[in-house]
Amino acid sequence: MKTLKVDLGERSYPIYIGQGLLGNAELVKPFVQGTQVLIVTNETVAPLYLEQCKTAFADFDTHAVILPDGEQYKNLDTLNKVFDTLIGGRFDRKCTLVALGGGVIGDMTGFAAASYQRGVNFIQIPTTLLSQVDSSVGGKTGVNHPLGKNMIGAFHQPQCVVIDTNTLNTLEDRQLSAGLAEVIKYGLIVDLPFFEWLEQNLEKLLAREPQALSEAIERSCQNKADIVAKDEKESGIRALFNLGHTFGHAIEAGMGYGVWLHGEAISAGTMQAVYLSKLLGDLSDADQARTAAILQRARLPIVPPSSAQMDKAMFLDLMAGDKKVQAGRIRLVLLKAIGQAYVTGDYPQALLEKTLDDLRP
Amino acid sequence: MKTLKVDLGERSYPIYIGQGLLGNAELVKPFVQGTQVLIVTNETVAPLYLEQCKTAFADFDTHAVILPDGEQYKNLDTLNKVFDTLIGGRFDRKCTLVALGGGVIGDMTGFAAASYQRGVNFIQIPTTLLSQVDSSVGGKTGVNHPLGKNMIGAFHQPQCVVIDTNTLNTLEDRQLSAGLAEVIKYGLIVDLPFFEWLEQNLEKLLAREPQALSEAIERSCQNKADIVAKDEKESGIRALFNLGHTFGHAIEAGMGYGVWLHGEAISAGTMQAVYLSKLLGDLSDADQARTAAILQRARLPIVPPSSAQMDKAMFLDLMAGDKKVQAGRIRLVLLKAIGQAYVTGDYPQALLEKTLDDLRP
Repeated sequence: MKTLKVDLGERSYPIYIGQGLLGNAELVKPFVQGTQVLIVTNETVAPLYLEQCKTAFADFDTHAVILPDGEQYKNLDTLNKVFDTLIGGRFDRKCTLVALGGGVIGDMTGFAAASYQRGVNFIQIPTTLLSQVDSSVGGKTGVNHPLGKNMIGAFHQPQCVVIDTNTLNTLEDRQLSAGLAEVIKYGLIVDLPFFEWLEQNLEKLLAREPQALSEAIERSCQNKADIVAKDEKESGIRALFNLGHTFGHAIEAGMGYGVWLHGEAISAGTMQAVYLSKLLGDLSDADQARTAAILQRARLPIVPPSSAQMDKAMFLDLMAGDKKVQAGRIRLVLLKAIGQAYVTGDYPQALLEKTLDDLRP
Repeated sequence: MKTLKVDLGERSYPIYIGQGLLGNAELVKPFVQGTQVLIVTNETVAPLYLEQCKTAFADFDTHAVILPDGEQYKNLDTLNKVFDTLIGGRFDRKCTLVALGGGVIGDMTGFAAASYQRGVNFIQIPTTLLSQVDSSVGGKTGVNHPLGKNMIGAFHQPQCVVIDTNTLNTLEDRQLSAGLAEVIKYGLIVDLPFFEWLEQNLEKLLAREPQALSEAIERSCQNKADIVAKDEKESGIRALFNLGHTFGHAIEAGMGYGVWLHGEAISAGTMQAVYLSKLLGDLSDADQARTAAILQRARLPIVPPSSAQMDKAMFLDLMAGDKKVQAGRIRLVLLKAIGQAYVTGDYPQALLEKTLDDLRP
């Protein structure tokens, strides 16, 4: 087992990474302060891992709520089901919520924990590659609104993150690929050596070799933890994590939540950001090609939805709702080179529109 | 104009109290960081004060959303109307929400500000006595759940609080009385001299003499600010503000939100807490009588709903959902004497039940 630390003063917490951690009671016990535990999971994960997870919390008064699976359920209505369970079950202020599942479960459970009785503790047990390398770390929680991803939420840090890499054995191929989009992102934004390592090891990751997966998760989490420690509430450098996300969130909302997986939308959105970076004269053709190649090897889409699926006006309108917009200007994460991302609102609107036109059939 | 300060380090903010502050642009301008302002108000307050309030924000891109009036609308559905307006209107992360109304508007607007894009700024402009002396100060925000008051929310401090005492001229008598319940509360829990001042000046307050109202508001806010500064997130002394509230919240939920005003429920609930304090041998008959007398002079109910309206099992069940419950034990704010409150879970259950039996017809 490896242990990383997210360094946030009194809100610091550990990330445990290893095989077979899911039923480990000793690991999680120190992070439960009261007597009541509510495990929040979904219909896909529950049959696979709920019982094993419950054994880790057997010393407590532990219950579970099982939500429907999918991004289309990440909204206030589903969140309210968690509140119904908490309030109906008389969970008190010292209770602990446990997020057992992917990014949707983690984001919703975290927001439920942030809001229930104005804030209770929670533990992240991510079971998808995407949530293990990205969404479970850093305290961003929330739900979607029909007009925009994650528009309603809170910064609320977990007590700890438990990553059992064995859970990846049951992950669908499509979900594994979606997770790789966020893994590759770390290389693209700040970590050229990691990008090069990924170029060398991508097939091992697709073959789910435990050693390779473990290293990819660890290096991703380390990048995430380092930057979150410097900028918890995204007033600066943390925004770099959003490479491809302003385009990608528009794709997710425009196509209907759940049609494109988050990681798929981020992959196509990354190619849009890369193309715009190239139009601006910042990024080389070679770096564009390397990015396209690795995403495609990861079996991710690199072409955004067509104009027939999402016309340009709709695409721009959805991008304009992004959280990084300031005074009407869409701010984007772009690349100078692989491993060197920056945030800017200073680009010609015509080039953004050209990006939407040129890449989409 | 008087200025008090809530001292919370980098989250410190001023409370301005005076006549005619509502349209004062200079006062609020320093607290708006971006260009967009959304005033959240209700159908009762909008015709009276919305235009005047807008003039204070005339330099900004200012819009308004008008919600239905009443505690029964303080829920996630109504909150979502605020999010619809924010997202549909492309409000960005630097926008400012303005709560123009009573406690329901303040609590919901504050929670919307806490959650929109994971947190934006907001300004409290309370227009009822209750919100001026209590709910607008201290950063407690949230909405109700059918099974419990304020069960979903956040701690989110405003940028400033602007109390225009002129708004009390249009307040219904019943609402004025409800506000007095929270004013009297400060005397009961920590401020005997203020309680004595209230005994001497209550008729002036009912007659809405500006001088008296202003003094009552100032002394109430000072008590609130002092305690919030010591215990922002209610891990200790702040819980004293909940005198009568565990009983009172049960009354509000049990009778249906909006049937009893919050202040009315707190008044009857305070008499229940006082009676239990007396049963425990802590409080004198004389102090009980003084408390009943001043609440009655404030035209507040001192008898809780009857057993026919809320049977004992229901009352206890609703109390058991309170946020102060720990490990199944209902913790209550009780009195040693007027001006000396304390929190305890250590009382015989039989005496709590006797309290519910004896005081209710």
